[in-house]
Amino acid sequence: MTEYLRALVLGAAAGGGLPQWNCGCENCMDARAGNAGLVPQTQSSIAFTSDGCDWAVFNASPDIRQQLLDNAVLHPRSLRDTPVASVTLTNGDIDHIAGLLVIREKQPFNVFATREIISVISANPVFNVVDRNLVAINEVSLGQSYEPAPGLTAELFAVPGKVPLYLEGEQVQTDLEGEQTVGVKLTGRGKTAYYIPGCALMTPALAERMRGADLVFFDGTVFTDTEMIDTGTGVKTGRRMGHMPVSGNDGSIAAFSSLDVAMRVFVHINNTNPMWRPDSTARREVEASGWQIGYDGMEVAI
Amino acid sequence: MTEYLRALVLGAAAGGGLPQWNCGCENCMDARAGNAGLVPQTQSSIAFTSDGCDWAVFNASPDIRQQLLDNAVLHPRSLRDTPVASVTLTNGDIDHIAGLLVIREKQPFNVFATREIISVISANPVFNVVDRNLVAINEVSLGQSYEPAPGLTAELFAVPGKVPLYLEGEQVQTDLEGEQTVGVKLTGRGKTAYYIPGCALMTPALAERMRGADLVFFDGTVFTDTEMIDTGTGVKTGRRMGHMPVSGNDGSIAAFSSLDVAMRVFVHINNTNPMWRPDSTARREVEASGWQIGYDGMEVAI
Repeated sequence: MTEYLRALVLGAAAGGGLPQWNCGCENCMDARAGNAGLVPQTQSSIAFTSDGCDWAVFNASPDIRQQLLDNAVLHPRSLRDTPVASVTLTNGDIDHIAGLLVIREKQPFNVFATREIISVISANPVFNVVDRNLVAINEVSLGQSYEPAPGLTAELFAVPGKVPLYLEGEQVQTDLEGEQTVGVKLTGRGKTAYYIPGCALMTPALAERMRGADLVFFDGTVFTDTEMIDTGTGVKTGRRMGHMPVSGNDGSIAAFSSLDVAMRVFVHINNTNPMWRPDSTARREVEASGWQIGYDGMEVAI
Repeated sequence: MTEYLRALVLGAAAGGGLPQWNCGCENCMDARAGNAGLVPQTQSSIAFTSDGCDWAVFNASPDIRQQLLDNAVLHPRSLRDTPVASVTLTNGDIDHIAGLLVIREKQPFNVFATREIISVISANPVFNVVDRNLVAINEVSLGQSYEPAPGLTAELFAVPGKVPLYLEGEQVQTDLEGEQTVGVKLTGRGKTAYYIPGCALMTPALAERMRGADLVFFDGTVFTDTEMIDTGTGVKTGRRMGHMPVSGNDGSIAAFSSLDVAMRVFVHINNTNPMWRPDSTARREVEASGWQIGYDGMEVAI
């Protein structure tokens, strides 16, 4: 039995993954070909354990079937079984909820989410394929402690963000703070970790919350705010998509520079992000600042 | 440019795939370990082309991202691009529709389905993530010809089946014939192929329809009707799930024995099916009867 709080990155990429099915950008082409040190990465999900047996998964990516296959610690140990004790949803985005449709085969586990995120699920009859007689959908309030797996304590808190793409209206507020986009504080084995795959803006309160943490997995979607426009792959800025950039005076590297967080790892990284490339100046800047780039199968024990 | 009508099996397994995330049956264990000649297989989908460039995909499996990555002919050829001209849905099951949520990134293509299957999609706001300004959802009537890709003609017809699992009520009719479960007739290059991933019952009319065809991909979900009960993995018979068995007097091998179909391939094969195993008596029976077992990446040209 482990003496550590352990994290396992199931999917390090943002929605679409690396490569994205319809993308011919340099990163996607190189990931398909295995060139320049790029390796395919699946969509956003992470798992934590404090006993090495029971795992709490955060976000159910559309790639969850492949993710559970790729990581032996998550294989069933008997005829019908899973080490996955629960799935917590941090927002209603497709890359975080669609995987619930995949793990639908009469297997008991817990789902945890805010009322607002549960209401998104409940508004879609397809999610009835998850048998409520076996899978408990647990509503969790902001600030309420719950146990996502034995020996782990979790707490959800509001992070600036927006509603899911498919619920956007004409006007989109990208710095909502409520139940639609949350971060997770995890404690176990006397350690504290944070998981925040989407964050539109670093507020003073959010920064203070994370001060002195042992480990933070943070939104690494775009390196610069105009990255998708600059690469010709999209028309939206990072912030319009609900993600603050990694670099720059108002980016996440700068925001964490005085927070004394022992270990910082970027996850939810978009396929266009130059820091995927080992030979890039972006990568050098990230690593020089003490951050790590997450990758599928990355294990962290604290 | 090819002179053939070509098919490419994207996913040969039924819902859940091989292995299924929570299944420790012998087939799933061996597929995870690469033992006994078993290889992991993704969920139900197939693609056809008559020009070698533009592909018509039938069913959008949750594994579609991996499937499009694994098959080089389906990679984008420019910055944002896909060789996928269209996706046709043959029923509303999760393993046939959830992939639409995955191919959501501002890429034009066509969706074809019956009114009933489209109504299932439309009842779920999550599918609004597929931008209707770029993706045309085309309603197709039974018996109506349409062009799923240049040079290909398709026609949908009713096949005995049931409503999707998540829409089942107290009583479930498993031999409905209407718009909820369809087969596909494909013609191109002077050849005729059929794709029927789900069929609860072989009716005389359905048998006559396929007589003399060049190629049929057919429902190979279960080898015997009580297979899931016998393996301890479920409580339903194959027929209750909307699938006639492969073997037996009323199975699909017997049903096709006098239909003079040149090439017969089983697809939509459940993880419990013994014919996955190269050394099984089931496999020998299938091959002795002139059938082939589909597999991910299988190419057939006629």
